Amino acid sequence: MTDLIDLLAVARLLSWDQQTMMPPAGTRHRADQMALVGRLAHEQLADPEVGRLLDELAPRADALDPDSDDATLIGLVRREHEKAVRVPSSLRAEMARAAAEGRPAWVKAKAESDFGSFLPVLERTVELKLRYIDCFPPHDEPYDVLLDDYERETSTAEVRTLFERLKPPLVELISRLREREVDDSFLHGDFSPERQRQLAYEIIDLFGHRPDSWRIDPTEHPFASGAGTDDVRITTNYHPDSLESLFSTMHEYGHGLYNHQLPARLERLPTGLSCSLGIHESQSRLWENLVGRSLPFWRFFYPRLQEAYPEQFGEIELERFYPAINRVQPSLIRIEADEVTYGMHVMLRFELEQDIVNGRVDLRELPQVWNQKMWDYLGVEVPDDAHGVLQDVHWSGGMIGYFSTYLLGTVMSVQIWEAAGRDLPDLEERVERGEFAALREWLGEHLHALGRKFAPQEALRQATGSTIAAEPYLAYLRAKYA
Amino acid sequence: MTDLIDLLAVARLLSWDQQTMMPPAGTRHRADQMALVGRLAHEQLADPEVGRLLDELAPRADALDPDSDDATLIGLVRREHEKAVRVPSSLRAEMARAAAEGRPAWVKAKAESDFGSFLPVLERTVELKLRYIDCFPPHDEPYDVLLDDYERETSTAEVRTLFERLKPPLVELISRLREREVDDSFLHGDFSPERQRQLAYEIIDLFGHRPDSWRIDPTEHPFASGAGTDDVRITTNYHPDSLESLFSTMHEYGHGLYNHQLPARLERLPTGLSCSLGIHESQSRLWENLVGRSLPFWRFFYPRLQEAYPEQFGEIELERFYPAINRVQPSLIRIEADEVTYGMHVMLRFELEQDIVNGRVDLRELPQVWNQKMWDYLGVEVPDDAHGVLQDVHWSGGMIGYFSTYLLGTVMSVQIWEAAGRDLPDLEERVERGEFAALREWLGEHLHALGRKFAPQEALRQATGSTIAAEPYLAYLRAKYA
Repeated sequence: MTDLIDLLAVARLLSWDQQTMMPPAGTRHRADQMALVGRLAHEQLADPEVGRLLDELAPRADALDPDSDDATLIGLVRREHEKAVRVPSSLRAEMARAAAEGRPAWVKAKAESDFGSFLPVLERTVELKLRYIDCFPPHDEPYDVLLDDYERETSTAEVRTLFERLKPPLVELISRLREREVDDSFLHGDFSPERQRQLAYEIIDLFGHRPDSWRIDPTEHPFASGAGTDDVRITTNYHPDSLESLFSTMHEYGHGLYNHQLPARLERLPTGLSCSLGIHESQSRLWENLVGRSLPFWRFFYPRLQEAYPEQFGEIELERFYPAINRVQPSLIRIEADEVTYGMHVMLRFELEQDIVNGRVDLRELPQVWNQKMWDYLGVEVPDDAHGVLQDVHWSGGMIGYFSTYLLGTVMSVQIWEAAGRDLPDLEERVERGEFAALREWLGEHLHALGRKFAPQEALRQATGSTIAAEPYLAYLRAKYA
Repeated sequence: MTDLIDLLAVARLLSWDQQTMMPPAGTRHRADQMALVGRLAHEQLADPEVGRLLDELAPRADALDPDSDDATLIGLVRREHEKAVRVPSSLRAEMARAAAEGRPAWVKAKAESDFGSFLPVLERTVELKLRYIDCFPPHDEPYDVLLDDYERETSTAEVRTLFERLKPPLVELISRLREREVDDSFLHGDFSPERQRQLAYEIIDLFGHRPDSWRIDPTEHPFASGAGTDDVRITTNYHPDSLESLFSTMHEYGHGLYNHQLPARLERLPTGLSCSLGIHESQSRLWENLVGRSLPFWRFFYPRLQEAYPEQFGEIELERFYPAINRVQPSLIRIEADEVTYGMHVMLRFELEQDIVNGRVDLRELPQVWNQKMWDYLGVEVPDDAHGVLQDVHWSGGMIGYFSTYLLGTVMSVQIWEAAGRDLPDLEERVERGEFAALREWLGEHLHALGRKFAPQEALRQATGSTIAAEPYLAYLRAKYA
């Protein structure tokens, strides 16, 4: 199993390199390399020897404490092995290759706002995903198969129920808040990318990590990756006219910290990986929103920002800055959305993806359908596909079923923040003093240390005392925007 | 076999990343990842299935044109398979571990100029190399086994004969040239690294390559790598007080161009790899020395350098610059040596390595033996082991038998240059006009296109009409320094 984990790390590095360093013409080589590493990883997991070993262990496994490292490892490997053997290596390799080839095609299509050139990539991705779904026994809904790869043991119906609980209050909040006049003009201007880069490093050093183990690189679409707990790589986009990179750095810091604090005891074991995308996102949203868009944080950090950009912020009081970075305004781009409208972007994608998988939408008409939903949910008009259906990288990389985890994570982030606050009653004061060690350690001990031993809802329950719930998130938003 | 080639590309990328991008704390993960990829590559080659396939193909192979793609592929794979199966995986693993542990020990020993702390590493490396040699049937000389890994089908005796032919004329040349007064003081000064970086990119663009397929990064020791013909990565060191990066960039360009122009027809086949380290070095030395230290090149490029560094070169005429970059002066460090003294550094190592492998030298006395030879061959006194026996990384990484390829390549570079000149009679005028396409294409067509189909001397014969010879190299040096 250590070979499998090492291969997954190599695959992450190949992907990181493709997005940050690789000369563009190298794509065709990278496609071969990623297909190979993907196939080798899959062969490790699907190896009949693994099945035999699991059968051998079964009698002894029953006697173990079900929460023990050994029992959870056996359970996880059995689950992943049984999923792996259902999917032919040839299909896995095709999926890996399509992903490697799809990304640059998306970059080009997005740059030219040309959905037509992206359509064949999308058609191929959907075709592969449908073949993938067919490898599994029928679920309640075909989309369940895709969702399970990102959010283990979480059904489409459960997510739908949660989202339906969220939607009306969010719509109500948005319609109320969109009327508010908030001046955020000073957030747009001339922000030297080199200084943004310095601030990004300053922020991850302030939030904290072990030395010599992190790096930040610029990419079109920010992400977190890395080849091990001591090789953490996050990316951001230093737009010269906005400070978006600050918040995306805090977001990716949350992902990076989770990877950084995975349990050393379970290193190079499947149970030592991160739990799920939703749990991962809870960590990024916690640092981006609960810390990074909070008043206590900016009481500490705003003087530093003023010092970095005296022309832009020298005259602006914190009392004007704080509402500006929390301005609620329906907009086009998910990753730039505020905390309140963000959920609507995710729900739109969650619904569209189900329509795609269930064949209820003609892919050629996706831009129109997208634009209509944007109008219905957020009241915004999409000017072109680059600001609409082409904005996200996910589909080009074969990731269908992924988006809902963003909102699951956002909702869970509030529950986790509140649980940390119960154990650390002076949490806000610590943030205001720029002290993050206690929060980092609390997350490490209560959540990161669980690795992938448990399904996400069980992990959340162990860390916070309850499974996912809409109410804390809604209450948090209502209080913040009261 | 395509898997093997893809794995080798992934291994190169892992190593490139480690030297350019990886956060230092990631070393322990990278060691696991590289060990895994190395093991998988070896398993591919040693696979009994490969042996069975070769046996099956044998009758048909005999009917093929021996120079055909198929026949050379079968021959090469048989050769590499038979070598691979002779070496137990346990020994391979021990060698990999010793190399992984040896490098940091060398870095430390060199930094502290402490041969004593490096001695156990060297003893272990030599012991492993002797066990490695024992895996093979007796050769004329044990050192042949090691040399063959770097310079296929080239014997120690052949190299010795060549080097003995070179030594007396080089010694004579050096003693004559060392007396010459050459002012190169203006080559030392304040050279902005950012401008050096721009010049490095300008040079590789001037020499020429396909778009979007190269990158240059800074490293302590320059090298060329990359993950495929359209993913070429070279490195250099922008010392702020010298222009060494210009020449090292031209050197690595030669390596990179060879990788860039390997035959598309044989891509992802063992015969599509580069021929040997010696042939590789012939390409780097050709661009660094025959082009990059030539008067025609600087007639074209010197105005550009003056423009880039007006303070340093505005007042210096080309007639003073050209002798300065070709100054001959015996010195301590191989990688900083001029064209004339370089060979002596290599011969010293070639002789010492044979003494080591044949047990003719007590490893504890290696520094004294090294220093004595440096005095005998170059008349320089070695002040400490960091500037002597500890200067090169090779032995710490298990590379014994490698050094002679540097001089073989240097000698061959002149033969290749002259062959190109016979087909392109206006080659010097082209260089003087900054036109490199014809040279690039000649190298591609006559040498790079051969890939690894033939042993290096046969490849050289096909490209130039003759095998390696001392005379063209000596004549070139005598003419240049007349």
